[in-house]
Amino acid sequence: MPRMTRTPAQIVHSDLHAGATLTVATPGEGFTDITREVAAFLSEAGARFGMAYLFCRHTSASLTIQENADPDVRTDLLTALDRLAPQGRHWVHDLEGPDDMPAHVRTVLTDTHLAIPVRDGRLALGTWQGVYLIEHRAKPHHREIVLGFSGQGAA
Amino acid sequence: MPRMTRTPAQIVHSDLHAGATLTVATPGEGFTDITREVAAFLSEAGARFGMAYLFCRHTSASLTIQENADPDVRTDLLTALDRLAPQGRHWVHDLEGPDDMPAHVRTVLTDTHLAIPVRDGRLALGTWQGVYLIEHRAKPHHREIVLGFSGQGAA
Amino acid sequence: MPRMTRTPAQIVHSDLHAGATLTVATPGEGFTDITREVAAFLSEAGARFGMAYLFCRHTSASLTIQENADPDVRTDLLTALDRLAPQGRHWVHDLEGPDDMPAHVRTVLTDTHLAIPVRDGRLALGTWQGVYLIEHRAKPHHREIVLGFSGQGAA
Repeated sequence: MPRMTRTPAQIVHSDLHAGATLTVATPGEGFTDITREVAAFLSEAGARFGMAYLFCRHTSASLTIQENADPDVRTDLLTALDRLAPQGRHWVHDLEGPDDMPAHVRTVLTDTHLAIPVRDGRLALGTWQGVYLIEHRAKPHHREIVLGFSGQGAA
Repeated sequence: MPRMTRTPAQIVHSDLHAGATLTVATPGEGFTDITREVAAFLSEAGARFGMAYLFCRHTSASLTIQENADPDVRTDLLTALDRLAPQGRHWVHDLEGPDDMPAHVRTVLTDTHLAIPVRDGRLALGTWQGVYLIEHRAKPHHREIVLGFSGQGAA
Repeated sequence: MPRMTRTPAQIVHSDLHAGATLTVATPGEGFTDITREVAAFLSEAGARFGMAYLFCRHTSASLTIQENADPDVRTDLLTALDRLAPQGRHWVHDLEGPDDMPAHVRTVLTDTHLAIPVRDGRLALGTWQGVYLIEHRAKPHHREIVLGFSGQGAA
């Protein structure tokens, strides 16, 4: 039998909702670490206890939370996504180039939306977790990510 | 180095939570656009600034956000899901037919839950983004989606 | 044309945010049902109407919502994840063993974050839905899941 333990519920009064938009100029296919930008938004909004969220306003770029220590993990994740949704197969939708439809598939397999708990004013990420935008198109793009926070504020 | 810019944090007082249930009669395997129904719910609830969410109460149907312009993209996404979780392989769980276990796998690979920011009373979707229910079973089904909103209301 | 029906919007005053941490000792690769623990947290927090959320603080374990009736479905889901992200392929990141990089890929393909509506104090899950932690590593691990609730409380 797996064993579980749970801390007592912490309960706060919550009446704050905050938002901002983050625009990222991607260098083409690959990962961009946006963890610091999310933390800076939370700090500016005075977020204390609640939930941060991110939403990527595109269908060929997406979000994920993954290891921030060894960059080889990101290299291997691109390889894995390339194996799961390879270029070079026949697609009906191919007007925008051979990297377009695979980019849509990779977006569906990863995340358009993420949410991360905020505790004591900080993202409650694990030690090895970073927040990443994944550009799935070959060429550089400008990508918009809507940021938000719901919970208790500083005042 | 990727360049990022971020708008100032917008902060509102938030004290509204709203909910409803959307029932969709699917025509069998494929995508159903539910964007308008989500928007209509937000309008009825008087949602102004916050986060909308959706939850699919099934394990063989799911949600995704994808391109709303060219229907070929949805055709290709079905093809991609069929390649990733094909029928015709051996599954232990096969009592409910050959399309059942692939439907569970496709549900896991896509989304049971989605959340979308609401700004100025509107879904902050990108230009080409639509919200879709994906029926993974071959036959028509009735599917229930729980809708919600957390944030600032109109009054 | 698909037919849709929607219940009227239910609107409540919301000012509660609650949190806790659930620690699970996993027995190695496989699913652990955590539905009851999430429900117990909501009960302790006095949650009435809103949204529960879960966040897994790891990059080689993840969350999903799937069928809770026939355990064969979970067996087949492990088989499916093993086919999608198999061991035995070459990865750049292989210091932590042959099951490590596949574990990262399987985490990306499933969920680090989940959210579930709460209605009348209960998780609004479908009849056949359970909430699961998936251990992707071969050996047992201790895994931390941050729980939260945003919405209306009991008082």
